[in-house]
Amino acid sequence: MIKRLERDLRKQLGSEKVLSDPLDLYVFGKDSGLVRGESSLVVFPTTTEDVVALVRVAARHGIAVIPRGSGTGLAGGVVATGEALLVVTTRMNRIEEVDVEDRMVWVQPGVINQDLSTHTSPLGLYFVPDPSSQSVCTIGGNVANNSGGLHCLAEGTTVNHVLALEVVTAAGELVVLGGASPDPTGLDLRSVMVGSEGTLGIVTKVLVKLTPNPPAVRTLLLAFADVENAAATVSGIIANGLVPGALEMMDRAMIQAVERFAHAGFPTDAEALLIAEVTGHPTAVDAEADLIRRVAQDHSATLIHIAVEEAERKRIWLGRKSAFGAIAQMNPDYYLHDTVVPRTRLVEAVKEVYVIGKRHGIPMLNVFHAGDGNLHPLMTFDASQPGVLDRVHAAGKDLIEACVAVGGSLSGEHGIGLEKRDYMPLIFDEVGLDAQARVREAFDPEGRLNPDKILPEGSRCFDFGRPPPVGAWV
Amino acid sequence: MIKRLERDLRKQLGSEKVLSDPLDLYVFGKDSGLVRGESSLVVFPTTTEDVVALVRVAARHGIAVIPRGSGTGLAGGVVATGEALLVVTTRMNRIEEVDVEDRMVWVQPGVINQDLSTHTSPLGLYFVPDPSSQSVCTIGGNVANNSGGLHCLAEGTTVNHVLALEVVTAAGELVVLGGASPDPTGLDLRSVMVGSEGTLGIVTKVLVKLTPNPPAVRTLLLAFADVENAAATVSGIIANGLVPGALEMMDRAMIQAVERFAHAGFPTDAEALLIAEVTGHPTAVDAEADLIRRVAQDHSATLIHIAVEEAERKRIWLGRKSAFGAIAQMNPDYYLHDTVVPRTRLVEAVKEVYVIGKRHGIPMLNVFHAGDGNLHPLMTFDASQPGVLDRVHAAGKDLIEACVAVGGSLSGEHGIGLEKRDYMPLIFDEVGLDAQARVREAFDPEGRLNPDKILPEGSRCFDFGRPPPVGAWV
Repeated sequence: MIKRLERDLRKQLGSEKVLSDPLDLYVFGKDSGLVRGESSLVVFPTTTEDVVALVRVAARHGIAVIPRGSGTGLAGGVVATGEALLVVTTRMNRIEEVDVEDRMVWVQPGVINQDLSTHTSPLGLYFVPDPSSQSVCTIGGNVANNSGGLHCLAEGTTVNHVLALEVVTAAGELVVLGGASPDPTGLDLRSVMVGSEGTLGIVTKVLVKLTPNPPAVRTLLLAFADVENAAATVSGIIANGLVPGALEMMDRAMIQAVERFAHAGFPTDAEALLIAEVTGHPTAVDAEADLIRRVAQDHSATLIHIAVEEAERKRIWLGRKSAFGAIAQMNPDYYLHDTVVPRTRLVEAVKEVYVIGKRHGIPMLNVFHAGDGNLHPLMTFDASQPGVLDRVHAAGKDLIEACVAVGGSLSGEHGIGLEKRDYMPLIFDEVGLDAQARVREAFDPEGRLNPDKILPEGSRCFDFGRPPPVGAWV
Repeated sequence: MIKRLERDLRKQLGSEKVLSDPLDLYVFGKDSGLVRGESSLVVFPTTTEDVVALVRVAARHGIAVIPRGSGTGLAGGVVATGEALLVVTTRMNRIEEVDVEDRMVWVQPGVINQDLSTHTSPLGLYFVPDPSSQSVCTIGGNVANNSGGLHCLAEGTTVNHVLALEVVTAAGELVVLGGASPDPTGLDLRSVMVGSEGTLGIVTKVLVKLTPNPPAVRTLLLAFADVENAAATVSGIIANGLVPGALEMMDRAMIQAVERFAHAGFPTDAEALLIAEVTGHPTAVDAEADLIRRVAQDHSATLIHIAVEEAERKRIWLGRKSAFGAIAQMNPDYYLHDTVVPRTRLVEAVKEVYVIGKRHGIPMLNVFHAGDGNLHPLMTFDASQPGVLDRVHAAGKDLIEACVAVGGSLSGEHGIGLEKRDYMPLIFDEVGLDAQARVREAFDPEGRLNPDKILPEGSRCFDFGRPPPVGAWV
């Protein structure tokens, strides 16, 4: 089966676009999560026509298709669970002409997130979503996971920065969802495609919304002797009617790891660090920075520093973005979790993270988008030690359950993929899973687009004619 | 058929919740658009259980179900095209306990938009979407149409202020879409439900996001001797990196109509008026108001007035919100159109509006959300004059085609409903319509939820097994 698919693809797309060497298949066998699969075949399309062709060829052979960007995902969203064609979009990296006046541009899905803003920066524009992996992750991956980032607190995640999508459907049809207008006409299929992790179609072009570079920026570094005061400062800032562009928190273990690694000038004796950033008109940002300073003072900040110069601001953010590199110094492996809790339950959730780490003997470091309650507990370990992976999995399960228990959810921004799909029943009842499964079937009736992702097995459970008893599941 | 449905509903829900008198059916036969239909039966549920029950009863009798709020829609979105049960949600108007810390509250769909903010205002919170009809329109209607409003420029339309929806499906199942977390987990069915005009399910409860009352507000009234300078001021403000909370424009005819009616202190000799509003920290808003003042000066504003006091600000907004009342003085009937164009094509589009009005002999007044290119050309006429409705329809068609021709879309915020669905092929190809039809089928396979709305007849046109030739429709 796969041999014939390979032969057809080599003929139709050109042999240079197809990989089938065992080593290549191994390399593309996982993302940045824990689980490994094995792709049967890897293809590198360069055009929309390539994608249409390969989807139709795969359909003819009845083979599943999995789209993949740079593989920085954390939940096994691009890991094959059976015979499958892996479609790597990294060679689809063209940026079309920027529409400067209406602030938008069509890009191919393989464009690297940071490359886009580098390209548009001389025009005074940038792409808002900035995941920590922005120097390597693709726009297509951002769309697939509805990625957030350090600066998404005020401006929203990827879905708020995508105007339209060109998509190849499971049947090899080409369709454009959304349009230049911010409010979509008809049913909003653009929003449901964003975050669908390649299960509804393969995105071949993205019309992204660009945002003007802010005229002025102030970045504040605030240190605290305890997590409670840092969290209270976050709440206080927002209670004052201010939504900073970014509001990031790190705990003591993370501060120390980062400082050893990146020398960002972070105070290593602090229990918690906040990085807040305000953007806008110069007079306005000075007033807002001053307000944040006063709130931090009221909550016993041990350090308040307002960075105005670009170089100093960059150093602070480099520190924050180095978090994942930094912990590689501590242990050979790490696993970054991604959960979200109501902001008012943040302190409680962080304390529970430490308890869980201790219970399973896994060191936990914390870095979070504090403004919206998005926790990123980071576990460090050495996977070569026997039994350690079981403990990592067990700790992960406890983490998710603890977050859901305080009213939180499975994932802030890194998707559900293969690794978290069995947790979906923690937050959805049968009818909720069934509704998602129906929509997925509407797009992909044969289930050949990235199978076994997001929805747990058996999600499609009700027939239309047979309503369940009222009240039984609400 | 309908008689038996009526008997069952009276038995199950209570007779006081069911109307079948011909006069009542006539009253509920249209919304604020042009088209009249006739409902077969009207029901006023008060609870989620009522809605589950009535949907199941209607399903048993094979009768279509149409949800309706206050009927302020403009596109016939709640008009029956055949035998149908009209479900009026206005008695479902309970507001549950406000979660002040996490800023959200569950409300029933019949809660009046303004009543919600009045209720939460003492807690320092409000609901952002503020359509001109906010004193009468319902939250459920806002959800159905993804309504915008005067202050949605910076903060987005209804979809950005809805966290979760409790929905009764076509089969009478109850499901919750979305959750307290701003980034939905799994497939984002919440976003596709918002704006679906009752075709995917009946919303019985809405978890809305509340926003803190801004600590300070400045409202600017700016007058110009021509529309070009007003439009250039809009572009200039946004080019300076400022996105005001509101940025509204009125043309001369509208200014004069409003001033005669509301005495808001608008300069009647101006060709165009801008109302801009900035909110935030007091020092910041003063700086931003000053920036707007300078941009307006650069574009030859003939009046620049910055309102600080609450009473004066209220008077300005009362003038803007009176637009539709004001034109009732001119002619017995009016028809408000709703289209959107790229902001850079605004001047061009406005001039075309006048040309079209002249061509069909229909006076046109203009009021628009200038910041996002959302035009509201308003036609005034006397429907009792023979032939005038034909001219109104013809002018409407020309308006839509002119807006689409400059890269615009069908609707900014008032839905497609019955009246605009035949224009959908202007902006969607067959595959685009088919994709929407499939999703609709996934939710409502028998097409009994608000039939004949949004999608034109024959939208479902491709079979899965038969992909169309590539490139034929892109």
